[in-house]
Amino acid sequence: MQAKYPSDSLCVMTDIVLPGETNPLNNLFGGELLARMDRAASISARRHSRRITVTASVNHVAFNRAIPLGSVVTVEAKVSRTFRSSMEIFIDVWIEDRESGNRTKANEAIYTFVAVDETGRPVEVPPVEPQTELEKQRYAAALRRKQLSLVLAGKMNPHEATELKALFV
Amino acid sequence: MQAKYPSDSLCVMTDIVLPGETNPLNNLFGGELLARMDRAASISARRHSRRITVTASVNHVAFNRAIPLGSVVTVEAKVSRTFRSSMEIFIDVWIEDRESGNRTKANEAIYTFVAVDETGRPVEVPPVEPQTELEKQRYAAALRRKQLSLVLAGKMNPHEATELKALFV
Amino acid sequence: MQAKYPSDSLCVMTDIVLPGETNPLNNLFGGELLARMDRAASISARRHSRRITVTASVNHVAFNRAIPLGSVVTVEAKVSRTFRSSMEIFIDVWIEDRESGNRTKANEAIYTFVAVDETGRPVEVPPVEPQTELEKQRYAAALRRKQLSLVLAGKMNPHEATELKALFV
Amino acid sequence: MQAKYPSDSLCVMTDIVLPGETNPLNNLFGGELLARMDRAASISARRHSRRITVTASVNHVAFNRAIPLGSVVTVEAKVSRTFRSSMEIFIDVWIEDRESGNRTKANEAIYTFVAVDETGRPVEVPPVEPQTELEKQRYAAALRRKQLSLVLAGKMNPHEATELKALFV
Amino acid sequence: MQAKYPSDSLCVMTDIVLPGETNPLNNLFGGELLARMDRAASISARRHSRRITVTASVNHVAFNRAIPLGSVVTVEAKVSRTFRSSMEIFIDVWIEDRESGNRTKANEAIYTFVAVDETGRPVEVPPVEPQTELEKQRYAAALRRKQLSLVLAGKMNPHEATELKALFV
Amino acid sequence: MQAKYPSDSLCVMTDIVLPGETNPLNNLFGGELLARMDRAASISARRHSRRITVTASVNHVAFNRAIPLGSVVTVEAKVSRTFRSSMEIFIDVWIEDRESGNRTKANEAIYTFVAVDETGRPVEVPPVEPQTELEKQRYAAALRRKQLSLVLAGKMNPHEATELKALFV
Repeated sequence: MQAKYPSDSLCVMTDIVLPGETNPLNNLFGGELLARMDRAASISARRHSRRITVTASVNHVAFNRAIPLGSVVTVEAKVSRTFRSSMEIFIDVWIEDRESGNRTKANEAIYTFVAVDETGRPVEVPPVEPQTELEKQRYAAALRRKQLSLVLAGKMNPHEATELKALFV
Repeated sequence: MQAKYPSDSLCVMTDIVLPGETNPLNNLFGGELLARMDRAASISARRHSRRITVTASVNHVAFNRAIPLGSVVTVEAKVSRTFRSSMEIFIDVWIEDRESGNRTKANEAIYTFVAVDETGRPVEVPPVEPQTELEKQRYAAALRRKQLSLVLAGKMNPHEATELKALFV
Repeated sequence: MQAKYPSDSLCVMTDIVLPGETNPLNNLFGGELLARMDRAASISARRHSRRITVTASVNHVAFNRAIPLGSVVTVEAKVSRTFRSSMEIFIDVWIEDRESGNRTKANEAIYTFVAVDETGRPVEVPPVEPQTELEKQRYAAALRRKQLSLVLAGKMNPHEATELKALFV
Repeated sequence: MQAKYPSDSLCVMTDIVLPGETNPLNNLFGGELLARMDRAASISARRHSRRITVTASVNHVAFNRAIPLGSVVTVEAKVSRTFRSSMEIFIDVWIEDRESGNRTKANEAIYTFVAVDETGRPVEVPPVEPQTELEKQRYAAALRRKQLSLVLAGKMNPHEATELKALFV
Repeated sequence: MQAKYPSDSLCVMTDIVLPGETNPLNNLFGGELLARMDRAASISARRHSRRITVTASVNHVAFNRAIPLGSVVTVEAKVSRTFRSSMEIFIDVWIEDRESGNRTKANEAIYTFVAVDETGRPVEVPPVEPQTELEKQRYAAALRRKQLSLVLAGKMNPHEATELKALFV
Repeated sequence: MQAKYPSDSLCVMTDIVLPGETNPLNNLFGGELLARMDRAASISARRHSRRITVTASVNHVAFNRAIPLGSVVTVEAKVSRTFRSSMEIFIDVWIEDRESGNRTKANEAIYTFVAVDETGRPVEVPPVEPQTELEKQRYAAALRRKQLSLVLAGKMNPHEATELKALFV
């Protein structure tokens, strides 16, 4: 299968924070942000694979900065690497200052989706060919995360997780 | 004030259609689409003016194609022209085919926002300098729409609506 | 087909404004009002035509007054005129003062719906016979709006838009 | 205080049933209907008292007919009787047939609201003067319901509930 | 059919109160609480009957205490008694103090559900065998409530409502 | 500070899946499940710490089984281990079969919350004393996950991550 660039699967979801989407501290409710990222990631997975896709796991979400009521929030999702039928989606969340227009990174997240056929069976997806420096770093780290996920799930012997093991020895 | 390009205020809001957002025919509920466009347009108005902005009017929305459940919908909003404190926002709505990735235009809409200061009084906004052919057409047509809106509201004598009058005589 | 009165299609939707329906300024979120008007207009179109109806366009919405959190809002929709299978719906939005009970006009909007059969093909709807002075004015103006809409969409030569042309020459 | 007619507090809330408001059987979700009736009843209580009002109890709701997806639902609420600061609200829910326009009664409910001042203390409300035969029946029955509610809450000795007792002896 | 204990049908629904679920006084909106209780009661009815169940009526809801934004709310529902195919569900609503962890009773409600087969026809459900003192009281009172409901609906002659009559004579 | 048992912070959130909470495949929408787990985890963190708590990260969520429309879903959250001011919350999600009443594990997730004072500064929380075998395993694994999270964030040298390193060498 022909490789695709991460930019081919870029999904940009810009939206504001209304009162019905806040927590009692008047910031964007964490669950609402998780839902928005899930929607953006599913679009990214679909654009990469042109298949039906389903959420397999949320691997990491860091809530670094609270996002206040009224903010403009941009969720950007791109496929960072694939493993046969699964796709790792890297998500960056930005907020922007109304007066200066400057963007600040608010959150970062990694989701995994699987492409399936009409009967729900996993199907192969195109590989990823990273282009920018950041895309290359994320591509490399994706393999360590994949091994880690297998080790934690008891599906891989830690000693076979060569990439991961190299970090520690 | 320094003019801005329409692309400076571009807001891209990509999202999917979930069952809770449909009408009984299993298409995106019109009211939900109107709400999404209002959110995108308000971000575009804010990016152009760097001010607090409020919806002044919805001037035109054409529902050309129903948007089925599960679609990927992209709402793109840009400021097309300004008049002192008011901004005309032109919105294009696209759906994309999952298998081919082709985009089709589904809807088009025009909203007007006003920039205000903290006390709610209208404040001047930068002018628009259109770049592409389409942006130039929309910029020119905005004046006719503005005159039309004033005539229909009884705030301008039809004979003074020179741009509009030229269409008919 | 037997004509119907605008009052035959009157839809009254009275409701309050809860926090989950506000914008960051604590007023009713514009998108939520657009959605409520769409629901009311669709009921009005259905009562006039007794058919399945779909939103064709939003022709004009003027947001004259902000509607604060906790308000009682009444959306009143009536068919103002029909053109074969399409119906123009005129919508008035009122808020009322809790202590005095006085009603104030907050917004006004015009939507167009089309009646369709089970296969989605447009079907003819009854004509409208206006009764009150206001209904007669809106009936007359509807033809100008119809021509305008056709002219703006490039589907009518401005010189054939006789009603509209008469405004300017 | 000057008595008011039930029609003075009539609240009409007409709306449709969208997929996001249904239960897994594709009928209007009971909780959504309870919420709509609560909103309509609170408007009715406010119109009668011109005060801040709070829900005190739901005394009876009969779900006689399921309300299918896509229905036009009309919730009509009126104050049926008052007791110093509390108001009994009688609610009728109707659905209408699209083709014939005929209305059918779907549900009936009784809610109680209390009028309060800015500090939350109960304040007296105007009495009700029923006009139609149905309003008179409901007015009379309200006293029995009031006594019943007090008896069931252990706040009235059953032997003092004269109206209620008369039913059984 | 084998009797079941009320504890067999216990449904515990703990959740918080977010801004999108409040009324303009910043307390949990009554309609939202009615909806949560309906969801909990339907689960309890299903656990008791292992059948499809539908809401038949809401018999009593007392809103004793407002539930402020940010509260932890626990809705506990149990079947208190059955009558052939109908089940009375008793619901207790608790809020807890963040600092001390103490629970306070906020509301109480009684709903009735009916078990049906796939064609919608009522089917018999197991009887209830109450265990605790409170369960026994509620079990006994359920018969009086059942008779009351029949009398108020005109489906039972008050003189045949022996349990209820005994209260008054 | 006095240690607490995981059972002290148990939060049980039982609820059903309505159509407005599904994805286009008629299963519970992933984002909605992420939001429910976030709400349950925040309650668990609050019960353990009796403090204001904020979501710090989502460390792992495995979507093992789709949850169909109409399911009864039980989200159970407990604090598994603490690190000064942060709490790891382990979440198990169960669905139950209507006819047999059997429960099946559908999902598993790990969230991290931080306890803060009124000014938003982190405050210490009680340690956890695990009791059951499963609680002890999760307690032990929490340290490896903590080190992993620090290593991946570049805040800990892999060679200092003794617990984690032991897995690989």
